[in-house]
This record gives sequence, structure tokens and C-alpha cells, in this order.
Amino acid sequence: MSAKSVVALAGGVGGAKLVYGLAQALPAEQLTVIGNVADDFELYGLHISPDLDTVMYTLAGIANPETGWGLAGDSWQMLDMLVRYGEEGWFRLGDRDMATHLLRTHWLAQGVSLTEVTARLACALGVRQRLLPVTDDPLATLVDTVEYGTLAFQEYFVRRRWQPVARRVWFEGAETARTTPAVAQALAEADLIVICPSNPVLSIAPILAVQGVRETLQQRAGRCVAVSPFIGGQAIKGPAAKLMPELGLDISVSGLWNFYEGLIDGLVIDVADTFQIAGEHKAVLATYTLMKTDEDKVRLAKEILDWVETL
Amino acid sequence: MSAKSVVALAGGVGGAKLVYGLAQALPAEQLTVIGNVADDFELYGLHISPDLDTVMYTLAGIANPETGWGLAGDSWQMLDMLVRYGEEGWFRLGDRDMATHLLRTHWLAQGVSLTEVTARLACALGVRQRLLPVTDDPLATLVDTVEYGTLAFQEYFVRRRWQPVARRVWFEGAETARTTPAVAQALAEADLIVICPSNPVLSIAPILAVQGVRETLQQRAGRCVAVSPFIGGQAIKGPAAKLMPELGLDISVSGLWNFYEGLIDGLVIDVADTFQIAGEHKAVLATYTLMKTDEDKVRLAKEILDWVETL
Repeated sequence: MSAKSVVALAGGVGGAKLVYGLAQALPAEQLTVIGNVADDFELYGLHISPDLDTVMYTLAGIANPETGWGLAGDSWQMLDMLVRYGEEGWFRLGDRDMATHLLRTHWLAQGVSLTEVTARLACALGVRQRLLPVTDDPLATLVDTVEYGTLAFQEYFVRRRWQPVARRVWFEGAETARTTPAVAQALAEADLIVICPSNPVLSIAPILAVQGVRETLQQRAGRCVAVSPFIGGQAIKGPAAKLMPELGLDISVSGLWNFYEGLIDGLVIDVADTFQIAGEHKAVLATYTLMKTDEDKVRLAKEILDWVETL
Repeated sequence: MSAKSVVALAGGVGGAKLVYGLAQALPAEQLTVIGNVADDFELYGLHISPDLDTVMYTLAGIANPETGWGLAGDSWQMLDMLVRYGEEGWFRLGDRDMATHLLRTHWLAQGVSLTEVTARLACALGVRQRLLPVTDDPLATLVDTVEYGTLAFQEYFVRRRWQPVARRVWFEGAETARTTPAVAQALAEADLIVICPSNPVLSIAPILAVQGVRETLQQRAGRCVAVSPFIGGQAIKGPAAKLMPELGLDISVSGLWNFYEGLIDGLVIDVADTFQIAGEHKAVLATYTLMKTDEDKVRLAKEILDWVETL
């Protein structure tokens, strides 16, 4: 019996790749994506949700295929003018992308929840899968750095290009941020939960930090598997392989098992890391996890969906 | 002795043409433009100041030469995406133009006055003349129409393309909107005040409606002249020749004299309307007022500056 209800926990670019594969491999009504919102931030008063947007644009088939984030065919006229006005322009606000930020900000200001805003935007773009922010409450990733002290996430990630040395990553609001009813229900009813190969600390941990997520995963009725974002001790993109050791976290196969302890029934790793599999690793799928082409993404998703039936 | 300090009262496109001419004819430090803000409005939470922007872009030399409003070389990617999201898109939000709206909105939300916001934006664009919103207080043009009842200005002007029949034009907030200190000082110290050929009812009347403007003009130490926006009973552009008769206002030379009664020392009209000059018209300059080219604008400005010396 194949999974009737699949929930993917996803951050940005890396997570969106597997989400794309899952979306091709599953009927739309069987897939729910729970997105990270702890990297949401305000810029010029705009509420920007980078991870939700990356997943939404991916599901809508309009993501920029080169960057993985932003919109295909976007331009930077507004940003160019902002720079002319003397602004720094470190965050790449695309012209088409601006419509998303503007409508989200406008609707949130009217009291519409982020869940409903996301549903409206995704629906208008023709997305048929469910995309749910993990919480409608404020939640913000902060990075304590050696060089600059505490940095807001986008300051660390985009402006400083994750070069500062991190000492601690924490989530402001995590004590009070609760899952939405839709997220709680999706997690509780899921036959399969897939933790995408997003950054475990920056993208998945803030999802797990929301009140109710970890508890629900620990008491899961269905299965939960995680996909390693590492290949041969390197991250495909982004700071995971730099950041996690800075925080004293082990990025080996054993390290990931420990990171997700009690939450997962299986771990998907790259064939390059097969040598790391040890006796205590109950269920590991070693396959090709690099997702360069759309075919890679679909193949990996299908392999995972088939493999979980054997767990 | 030529005027040392010239203040232009200007609305949007029509006013900006003469402002351009005055800016070429005068040293930058001698020209202050007082702009209409009663057509300011909120769209998606953005504070948009169409008239101030038109004058600012004109003075910065970056206005769209074809439309007269907006920025040269602008694009409409965001608007296109807004329409994809199901929005109407009746107001033409240009991509480059968005930077202006975004910064203005952001700074106003921080408590910066519209006067200071306008100064910052204009300075960054290299504008050396002073551009002053007539007030920092809320002021909104409303049009009572036969077909749709009371319409907000942009609903009437842009969305309905000024086709509804107007019964009354009024300015919400006029009882409490006061001139800024900078405007009061500029008007009091002006050697010459030029009422630009903007729409008298929609662009100039809201400036005059602000507490302190009419009183200061009535007690003016310098001279004040108005430039007729009509040529042969027609407006060059926009609704003046349609709207004013709907409101029972006479758009003849005599009608304009009456409209600006007590406020002006002279009236500039087009040669096409010379036949309308009557005995009671103390000081009329009849010249070519159509400003198609930049040369037209500069010539008209210089003619006015020369002529006022004879008053």
C-alpha cells in the first residue's frame, strides 16, 4: 500500500527540489508541503517569506531554474532604482517577485493569516498541492556570530553570505509559536512525512521548534524519513557543512541520525556516503541524491516513495 | 529687477511642463515648487504621490517623455504579475517607480514627514530645486459623481478615466490641513508665484484649500500670475474642460479671472483666446501656451518671467 498522504517539511532551494520531484510523483491532493517561515523578514515594510516563495514558485512551475529562488524571467528595475536612491540593495528583490511581497504584506496588514495568504497566492498561480506555513505566529531565526554578534537570519545568510562564524542558532518566538490547525492535522494524518534535504539547522530545526511539531512527529502514526543534504561531507549549496560543525554538530550519517533522533524511521543518503553506514543505522537508503535535473528530482522522489514501503 | 524667489504651484503633468521651463530659466536656488498632495492615495498599502512624483521626475530629468508621468524606460513586470494574481491592475505601477513608492511608504511609516521624504527622494535623484508638498496633513480629493456617487480621486481619474459626470469636487481634510512651515515661508517670501497650467479644480484648488495658502496669497508681497490650461476652450490633456462646466464653472478667460479672484495679478492665456480679453482684465499675457517640446516650455517660462516685470 503506497502512502495516501505525504507531508514534506521543506526549507528553500534544496527542499524545493525534492518537493518538485514529489509533486511529479504523487497526485496533487496527496501532497502537503509544510514550509519554514523563520527566515521571513521585513524589508522596506514588506513581509518577505523566502522559503514559502521558493516552494510556491517551484510548485507553480515558474521558479528561476538557474538560482532555484525567485521567478523565471524576472528583472531588477526596482532594485536598480532603489540603489539609485542610495539604498544598499543587498536583498535581490525582483520586479515580478515584488507582486508576491506586496500582496502578502497588504493582506497580512488586513488581518488575513499567513496560511490564508499563502493559499490565495498559490491558488492564483495554479498550485494544486497544499502549501502550509508551519505557523502563523512570529518566528525568527537568529544567528549568534563571532564577528558581528547576533544577526537576523537574512543579515547572516544573504547580506553576509553566511561567512561569519556561528556560535549559536536560535529561534525567537519558538516558545509561543504554535502549529496552525491545518499543519497539526496534516502531520497527524500523514502516512509519510519526508524531511527534505534542506539545511537541518536553518530550515528544518525551526519547523521542529514550533510548538506541536516535534511532539506530533514523535507520536507519528505514519512513517517519517529524512533526506541528507550532504554528499561526501559537503553541502550541495549553502552553509550546512560550514555551519553545523561550527555549532559542534556532526554532519556524518551518524550525526544526522542523532540530529533527527526519535523523529525518523529512515534516512536517505548519497551513495558517496555509503561507507559511513554503521550497524546501528536501522534503515538507510543509499542512492544518488544530487538533484541537478528535473529527472533527478522525480527519480529520487520515486525511489524514496518505493523504499519507505519496505520499512 | 527680476524675481529672486519664484514659487510654482503645480499639479501633475501640465504643471510639470511649466516647472521644467522655469527650472531651465532660473538658477536652481531661486525656484520652489509647491505640489498638490490631494491626489495621493494608498494602493496595496503603498503611499503614492502622483503629482509630487511627476514634478520630481521632471526636475530630475528622468520623467517618461511620452506620458509625462512615470519614469523613462520603466517596465511593468510587477504589474503583470499582480494581474496574474488576479488583481485588476488599473493603476500603472511601474517597476522603477515602485522604488519611490516603497521608500516613501517605508519612511512615512517610520514617522518621517512627507516634506522630508520628498526632500530625500528628490535630493537622491539630483534635484536641486526645492519641491515641497503643500501640507504634511491628510488631504484627499473626492468627486461626487452622478453615476457612481462619491469617488476617491484616483477611482475617478485613473480607473474611470474621468468619464463620470461630476457634481461636486471637495477636499477631505481641508478644514484641518495646514501648510508646512517651509511652504508658508516660501509663499510669504516669494517675489513671484506662478500658478501652473494644471487643472484649476483638481490640482490648484486643493493647494489653495490648505489652511494658510489662500490667506497668504491674498496678502502676498510679491506678484502672482496664473497660466490658463485652456486653448480655444479645450484642455490640452485631462478633464478640466469637461469637469469645470459640469460643476458650473466658466472656463473662459473671464471665468479663470473669477476663479482666481483676489489671488492673481495677471493671467497668461493662449493667443487662440485673445478674442476673449475684456476691458476688466487688467493684465493678460496672450502667447503660445502649448508646451509640446522642451523649447516650448523654456520659452513660455521666460516670457512669463519677463512679462511679470511689466506688471
